[in-house]
Amino acid sequence: MEIQFLGTGAGQPSKARNVSSLVLKLQDEINEIWMFDCGEGTQHQILETTIKPRKVRKIFITHMHGDHIFGLPGFLSSRAFQANEEQTALDIYGPVGIKNYVLTSLRQSGSRLPYHIHFHELTQDSLGKVLETDKFTVYAEALDHTIFCIGYRVMQKDLEGTLDAEALKAAGVPFGPLFGKVKNGENVTLEDGREIIAKDYISEPRKGKVITILGDTRKTNASVRLGLGADVLVHESTYGKGDEKIARAHGHSTATQAAEVAKEASAKRLLLNHVSARFLGRDCRQLEADAREIFPETRMVRDLEEFTI
Amino acid sequence: MEIQFLGTGAGQPSKARNVSSLVLKLQDEINEIWMFDCGEGTQHQILETTIKPRKVRKIFITHMHGDHIFGLPGFLSSRAFQANEEQTALDIYGPVGIKNYVLTSLRQSGSRLPYHIHFHELTQDSLGKVLETDKFTVYAEALDHTIFCIGYRVMQKDLEGTLDAEALKAAGVPFGPLFGKVKNGENVTLEDGREIIAKDYISEPRKGKVITILGDTRKTNASVRLGLGADVLVHESTYGKGDEKIARAHGHSTATQAAEVAKEASAKRLLLNHVSARFLGRDCRQLEADAREIFPETRMVRDLEEFTI
Repeated sequence: MEIQFLGTGAGQPSKARNVSSLVLKLQDEINEIWMFDCGEGTQHQILETTIKPRKVRKIFITHMHGDHIFGLPGFLSSRAFQANEEQTALDIYGPVGIKNYVLTSLRQSGSRLPYHIHFHELTQDSLGKVLETDKFTVYAEALDHTIFCIGYRVMQKDLEGTLDAEALKAAGVPFGPLFGKVKNGENVTLEDGREIIAKDYISEPRKGKVITILGDTRKTNASVRLGLGADVLVHESTYGKGDEKIARAHGHSTATQAAEVAKEASAKRLLLNHVSARFLGRDCRQLEADAREIFPETRMVRDLEEFTI
Repeated sequence: MEIQFLGTGAGQPSKARNVSSLVLKLQDEINEIWMFDCGEGTQHQILETTIKPRKVRKIFITHMHGDHIFGLPGFLSSRAFQANEEQTALDIYGPVGIKNYVLTSLRQSGSRLPYHIHFHELTQDSLGKVLETDKFTVYAEALDHTIFCIGYRVMQKDLEGTLDAEALKAAGVPFGPLFGKVKNGENVTLEDGREIIAKDYISEPRKGKVITILGDTRKTNASVRLGLGADVLVHESTYGKGDEKIARAHGHSTATQAAEVAKEASAKRLLLNHVSARFLGRDCRQLEADAREIFPETRMVRDLEEFTI
């Protein structure tokens, strides 16, 4: 799986960074893409990528500020233009209000979508496990921003060991019912008397990946809980060292605070986004350097950058 | 005055053309900018120009389709970020529904603007003269699209002749009350007996400019009426020669039809916008060439292109 950042700026678009959006590409796992936030111009950014809008099947909104949602009506409308494909439904998770916002925008603009949208409006009381499929579970918890804001923890379920069919065949096991038995962990005895030990032919189960994607927030324990042991923790970094007071006042974090969260959560990797437009070039690298002092596996990401998880 | 195109594409953004928006720069005349339509990403396009959002005092919306309005909430929110300036109010003219769309978007996103918006919702019955100031009058008429769509005719009032103060001074007229008399068209006699003929020192009154900006439309007489004698006629050109049927079905025009309108209206100049993304490079030049066969003063415009009027 991969994570790609479509917009890594804060508040307003700048020439260097668009407003918030990122995608989690789960094409190898479930042939789907999940989007997190959809600021204005997200569909424009997608034009610079290989992302097919119809592959986006779930959108998770962290909070209702404009720089996280104003691209939604346009993205949803343009998604409808993809012809000659069955128009697949889409789920939108987000705070109460997201349904009214989207439906009002679509209705007033005379947009009739050829696919269905299932809205999952979340409140403080309905957080926790918000989604479970056979391969993924998503947990949500409230963060600490100026308005209700949600952090998401996407947990891939552990992957079963897989049967090494080639090795089994090489060992002389005839293709058929015996394969099934070995696959189910059963040892079998061949006609020639040899015993086949199932676990020799089944790979170790693999731990599922954990990806934590936070919205705008002050430093908070909820972020640590959501990020516990995460393979990737995406944390906002609106401000830099020395800006702690203004960060607190506006409901945001400094790069250093983000690193503290990653460290406390024992995350494996920290990706910083939602950077104020006043940080350019060297200042940005300074934010990254500040964070690395506390959590070395930190990266300040740029628009369109992609990471394999 | 100048006209600058922020988005010249149709329906969806492409790499070459953003969705609809343009500005009429009236800075020399009234220190204001007027915007016509505001598709998604208009504020991003503005980053590539010298336009100051706070100078945008009036926004005219042609119709409610998403590619003409989805940039409005983001533009209005970002306009609020310009600090240290008195936050000037703004007028929005457009079809009924524009107020609900804008206010719902702003309310749901928790945006509180530090300036007031005056909405002027227009219906078929309230078209005609929709605005009159001391220097400009704006007329509106319904076009022929799939939904209610408005064309705007911006008429600058004729400019009074101006006094040539240097010439008057050179003629030996003492600065003072006599200047005022000459300015008011009164002939005066100097102490040395010479007569000063006022009209020799006052330039001819200048005709005000006429700028016609149409929304999406089939070829229609309303466009001709709005464009009569216009210095600049902006007409959509979604389709090309041979596409007349599909253009009609979707409520649009071909480049040739736009040229016919310009010719029937005896406009001085035709600027084609709202071009389908399937026309690239040479195809676009073909559309322009087709139009020029009928109306030579035609230009197919590109994003960010600016014209002096």
